[in-house]
Amino acid sequence: MAQNIYDNQSFFDGYSTLPRSVGGLDSAPEWPALLALLPAIKGCRVLDLGCGFGWFCRWADEKGALSVEGIDLSEKMLARAKADTKEPSIRYRQADLERVELAASAFDLIYSSLTLHYIKDLAALFDKIYKALATDGKFVFSIEHPLFTAPNHPDWITGPQGSEVWPLDNYLLEGDRLTNWFADGVIKQHRTVGTYINLLIQAGFSIDQVNEWGPTAEQIAEHPEWLRERSRPPFLLVSCKKS
Amino acid sequence: MAQNIYDNQSFFDGYSTLPRSVGGLDSAPEWPALLALLPAIKGCRVLDLGCGFGWFCRWADEKGALSVEGIDLSEKMLARAKADTKEPSIRYRQADLERVELAASAFDLIYSSLTLHYIKDLAALFDKIYKALATDGKFVFSIEHPLFTAPNHPDWITGPQGSEVWPLDNYLLEGDRLTNWFADGVIKQHRTVGTYINLLIQAGFSIDQVNEWGPTAEQIAEHPEWLRERSRPPFLLVSCKKS
Repeated sequence: MAQNIYDNQSFFDGYSTLPRSVGGLDSAPEWPALLALLPAIKGCRVLDLGCGFGWFCRWADEKGALSVEGIDLSEKMLARAKADTKEPSIRYRQADLERVELAASAFDLIYSSLTLHYIKDLAALFDKIYKALATDGKFVFSIEHPLFTAPNHPDWITGPQGSEVWPLDNYLLEGDRLTNWFADGVIKQHRTVGTYINLLIQAGFSIDQVNEWGPTAEQIAEHPEWLRERSRPPFLLVSCKKS
Repeated sequence: MAQNIYDNQSFFDGYSTLPRSVGGLDSAPEWPALLALLPAIKGCRVLDLGCGFGWFCRWADEKGALSVEGIDLSEKMLARAKADTKEPSIRYRQADLERVELAASAFDLIYSSLTLHYIKDLAALFDKIYKALATDGKFVFSIEHPLFTAPNHPDWITGPQGSEVWPLDNYLLEGDRLTNWFADGVIKQHRTVGTYINLLIQAGFSIDQVNEWGPTAEQIAEHPEWLRERSRPPFLLVSCKKS
């Protein structure tokens, strides 16, 4: 059973204040890069793993998806997703991604945003995702970048030369990372970039693109405080396909 | 024209003292991991890009390669390679990998150890490598890990918690990195892990395995000072194929 931190009231309240929780996809700085990895949505059977408030599900429906299903562990998030969703063609399901059952060859696109770094048995989930895709189906996801999750003390420090550096350690030490983010004791799974790629290949996927996301020049002009994110990418975006 | 730092006398003299220069493949800690990525050598037409002293060429010949060619920019290294090589079936060629010409479909394995982080136009070289491989041919290489090449000041520091950390910055800022390693002004090319993978895919390769190398428990037992290499992998190993 995965940790259900999103149903922790203080976590949920904090998370709900994030720009992406208030403004949706366009308020997530990595969304344009993630969008660039997506296939044409029209006519696709779409599954969103960790659908949260349903922003992506509604977007996919609007873009002409044939069907859209969103799965999430959090009852609080699904309650808001359902309340915010008028389209009867979008289905939501409450399930733990560590145990979820997915129909075979049922989807053309499986999407997941900032969810998979909570999953312990990722090899098993990748196998399920591979089987759930139709031939030529795409799997596109984002996670917290392994450089973001690795350190013992994941916070910028001033280096000996006076400039800000990211205190990298433990990069190859995979496993639990305990952080306090809107609530104490949030457990994430740290894996290397190589492990993510190798697990996908072992599941049968061929890799299409790997994007270690950093803000664009335009985004930095608008948010100068994001400049340092180019020193240590916060997100890793991957697209791959079942071939 | 690539920088020919290996023909700088003080660089060459320093490099020649490294365990891997004295003892060959078995003295390189990442060799067992690189070996695990290699196909069966017997009957292969093998090309080594950046062959240095010819250790890999002689190993491949000993393992029954059908033919072996080694290319390097450094005349000093090739002189020693030739002096150390008795096997007439191994050919050495002096060439700049930024401009090298390779015959089409001429090789079953192209190998490169710790060389490609010196190459500016890697997309062009990957295209040539792809064309030079026969169908189902393998390309296996190691480079200095992008986490190793990224920082402005690539040296361990003591973090605020008292433990050693790697001062990561500039990870997404690709391009020249000037270091002083056996000689002043050694120029390396920093690229992200994602860029290496995307360039391979754009050239037509499918990725087989990505190994962010760190020392094994046995190696750490023998060399306790290598423990910190698990905090920031020094090498990136990749195998891919032309399919």
